[in-house]
Amino acid sequence: MANKRVMIVGGVAGGATCAARLRRMDENAEIIVLDRGPYVSFANCGLPYYVGNVIREESNLLLATPALFRDRFNIEVRTQNEVLAIDRAASSLSVRDLLTGRTYTESYDALVLSPGAAPICPPWPGIDLPGIFTLRTVPDSREIRNWIEEKKPRTAVVVGGGFIGLEMAENLAHREIAVTIVEMANQVMPPLDSEMAEYAKQQLESHGVALALGDAVAEFAHGAGNHIQVRTKSGSAYEADLVVLAIGVRPETNLARQAGLEIGERGGIRVDNQMRTSDPRVWAVGDAVEVRNRVTGQWELTPLAGPANRQGRIAADVICGRDAHFDGVLGTAVCGFFDFTVALTGATEKALRRAKMDDFQCIYLHPGHHVGYYPGAQPIHLKLIFRKSDGLVLGAQAAGAEGAERRIDIIANAIQMKATVFDLEEAELCYAPQYGAAKDPVNMAGMIAANMLRGDAEFAPWEEIQSSNEFLLDVREPAEFEAGSIPGSVNIPLGQLRARLGELPRSKEIWINCGVGQRAYYACRILVQNGLSARNLSGGYATYRVLHP
Amino acid sequence: MANKRVMIVGGVAGGATCAARLRRMDENAEIIVLDRGPYVSFANCGLPYYVGNVIREESNLLLATPALFRDRFNIEVRTQNEVLAIDRAASSLSVRDLLTGRTYTESYDALVLSPGAAPICPPWPGIDLPGIFTLRTVPDSREIRNWIEEKKPRTAVVVGGGFIGLEMAENLAHREIAVTIVEMANQVMPPLDSEMAEYAKQQLESHGVALALGDAVAEFAHGAGNHIQVRTKSGSAYEADLVVLAIGVRPETNLARQAGLEIGERGGIRVDNQMRTSDPRVWAVGDAVEVRNRVTGQWELTPLAGPANRQGRIAADVICGRDAHFDGVLGTAVCGFFDFTVALTGATEKALRRAKMDDFQCIYLHPGHHVGYYPGAQPIHLKLIFRKSDGLVLGAQAAGAEGAERRIDIIANAIQMKATVFDLEEAELCYAPQYGAAKDPVNMAGMIAANMLRGDAEFAPWEEIQSSNEFLLDVREPAEFEAGSIPGSVNIPLGQLRARLGELPRSKEIWINCGVGQRAYYACRILVQNGLSARNLSGGYATYRVLHP
Repeated sequence: MANKRVMIVGGVAGGATCAARLRRMDENAEIIVLDRGPYVSFANCGLPYYVGNVIREESNLLLATPALFRDRFNIEVRTQNEVLAIDRAASSLSVRDLLTGRTYTESYDALVLSPGAAPICPPWPGIDLPGIFTLRTVPDSREIRNWIEEKKPRTAVVVGGGFIGLEMAENLAHREIAVTIVEMANQVMPPLDSEMAEYAKQQLESHGVALALGDAVAEFAHGAGNHIQVRTKSGSAYEADLVVLAIGVRPETNLARQAGLEIGERGGIRVDNQMRTSDPRVWAVGDAVEVRNRVTGQWELTPLAGPANRQGRIAADVICGRDAHFDGVLGTAVCGFFDFTVALTGATEKALRRAKMDDFQCIYLHPGHHVGYYPGAQPIHLKLIFRKSDGLVLGAQAAGAEGAERRIDIIANAIQMKATVFDLEEAELCYAPQYGAAKDPVNMAGMIAANMLRGDAEFAPWEEIQSSNEFLLDVREPAEFEAGSIPGSVNIPLGQLRARLGELPRSKEIWINCGVGQRAYYACRILVQNGLSARNLSGGYATYRVLHP
Repeated sequence: MANKRVMIVGGVAGGATCAARLRRMDENAEIIVLDRGPYVSFANCGLPYYVGNVIREESNLLLATPALFRDRFNIEVRTQNEVLAIDRAASSLSVRDLLTGRTYTESYDALVLSPGAAPICPPWPGIDLPGIFTLRTVPDSREIRNWIEEKKPRTAVVVGGGFIGLEMAENLAHREIAVTIVEMANQVMPPLDSEMAEYAKQQLESHGVALALGDAVAEFAHGAGNHIQVRTKSGSAYEADLVVLAIGVRPETNLARQAGLEIGERGGIRVDNQMRTSDPRVWAVGDAVEVRNRVTGQWELTPLAGPANRQGRIAADVICGRDAHFDGVLGTAVCGFFDFTVALTGATEKALRRAKMDDFQCIYLHPGHHVGYYPGAQPIHLKLIFRKSDGLVLGAQAAGAEGAERRIDIIANAIQMKATVFDLEEAELCYAPQYGAAKDPVNMAGMIAANMLRGDAEFAPWEEIQSSNEFLLDVREPAEFEAGSIPGSVNIPLGQLRARLGELPRSKEIWINCGVGQRAYYACRILVQNGLSARNLSGGYATYRVLHP
């Protein structure tokens, strides 16, 4: 039998992983990686940090060279070779060598598409002005670095407040550039629920990043003194010496579309759970494909490195005759800026609503990342979402200076393993004073949810707080109450509650808040056992403040 | 129906949690907490840090006062009241008020024992000399602080190299005291497998802590110039201005024994999975009870705060008529010292051998805590243990400057959820350059294990490396090999391997190592597919160095 001939289009993340895995599975296969760019296997997640000079050497971004692929894996990598078309009937590719201009044909037994996704670059007037950049490749980041070094920009506009936009904002701030973020949504980090994004917003603003939310770029123009003027739909204008477009990415599907491969409803290449496209000899992996969300079951575009790598391995295994499967994504992601971390996994509340899954409950909590008696505890703001009917964990979002990613990782594993909140309650996690608490934030989240599911503490709906006629009770100490409280709430400190039950109405529900939710829970138990009707406001006044910023 | 009367003996961790949970479950119960010490609900895990002055105020250690229990929970706390005896037939306690000397009787409907565990204090000659301390209570830590402030000790011996011993060593070093640890075992941190404890040993020694391992105290004597002389069985002698005994703890079972309650084979109070003792009206929780290990099924003493709190909740629930269960412990634990972390969960190799469970495989890996291209990556030394027959995750140990506790927490949740290494392979965890890698250390561990279980890469037995006649192949670059290698190994760099296959024997197994295991895996795939017999040495030369320190 002749050796298998595998062509891989795109040599970053999924493509590079697929190539290396293929070699490990089949020493005899002929494996060729084609990439139109000058580099393969570069650290695209590191590009913002190279702009920020946190990563100082461009060579650090190059994880593997064609020479390494050749020597270590016996894989041929052809950079600056662009695939122009796929001839599926002939099982061949038309390729152009970008250096020589020569066009040639390569046949394949198996074809893997790993073309990635390209930054969205709308046809706004003035978008070609010098000083306006996108960030996808090593040369892109080099150009921005060069611009910074040559032009010494003092102001920048980052268009887009998603993960890359925020990383860019921080890295430009490292270069002592004043940054404004223009974001169409009314929040930064659009994948997050808006109240959780509020923590990111506060952190950005406290570090001097200006935010123009709910506004969109209309056009770019020459401004005063060589600046770029960024004009928005709301009529605002921002002068900038540098503009970075970080609006998002769009899967590179041109080749796949031209070849007649199925494209999904979200605009990505449609694959089965073995990463096979609608052509059984063509696989696709990485940012260009649509994947199923494990929680909602919806198709989505999830441009993340972890799933891309996993998909590359699975495509390689399947090509080599193994029975491997990709089981979808949780969407676990993390973003860090200004010593602050925001992370999420599983479904958000908005994703569940989009998927019309309404059997869920959200809770909020604000525990320290370690015990309070050890110095330096930082709050973790945590939102846990679980299925109301059985407690299945559906998603979590966390924000904080320390330990947010650790709790999201634990919950990501829990969701993968189909854990319930009762399992989180029992989780046995690392505790020493500098690391956590005997009741870790993950345990606390599980307990709060489990208390509700067992009927011990019901939650009042935060979204009705301003329109409701129920009785609002605040059980904090008077000094806390006076420093800020929910309008219309009445203060009876927890310690006085048993003696003052007579002050509470029996004709209304009593909606209870405290600082972060713990005392309200205690109060709720007292009231309910005394025959009153009571519910907690999850996460207390700390939650109120991000819901009503 | 009369209100239930619950007496709780011991007001720290499990006892305090049980009391508060009881109140939430039953507003009408009469709940009395008796503690012979001056404080309840204090932070015993914080005591070493109070000695080290990391925690500066004693008040920070007091998590709740009797007044708070009264006002918030309507719970009566009687400190300095010692329970002398349990009369189970009469359902009553004999109690002495230590301040007045008065002895009185209290009846109970339900009794909860949470007496904790006491530091082991062998009858060594000289053990009562001034300057020799144990550390269990707030007054204990205050006495050590006072000794440090008055006597200005310059040298200390810590007897016992377990978690508390290491925390004490670090905290005494903070006070500029030169510390020697005397430990009977041949390793520090006896719960760990010895090669994983080697990382802790290296870290301690690099911070100037002297270690006397495999040696035991014989006696204490007056030394020169007011020193204490610590004489050991090996004939060594150490002069110290301060001695802290941190040998371990022994469950406080006197009351339970006198009352005829069943005591288990490990010397703790025996309870069922509802924390009920052999008397159906008496419960016991915390460090005094034996618990089942979830992985080995063995009874063990696991003095940890997390399980103690959980047990307290379960006892309260059961007393209130609920159907709650304690499902055993994983033994998840963490210890930090000198900016270094060692953590473990589930079964160790030695625990599996003790339990005569031999269906397991250990692997080692040494990944960075985040990607190498982002500055500051620190290695995590990770040992994963899984069931060889089906890949069930059994245990993990990790050591490193950053991120060890995060990976152990993920694996702890995985063990709880009965995950396999195939699940770890698929875990979708937080990745951005400063947080991890597209293939997180947990994924890497899963992949290495799964590769083995799928038959893609077998492991050579490290324990036979020095006696084996197999061919030892080192596939690192020559410069790495020259800097140190396994005796008898032959160097062929990975990049030259395909061209030099003829140099390898077909009559022997080839045992391959590289730096940390990755290149050896690649090499193994090349050799096996070329018809040679090859196995990897898990974790490579990095593992060799801790196995043969």
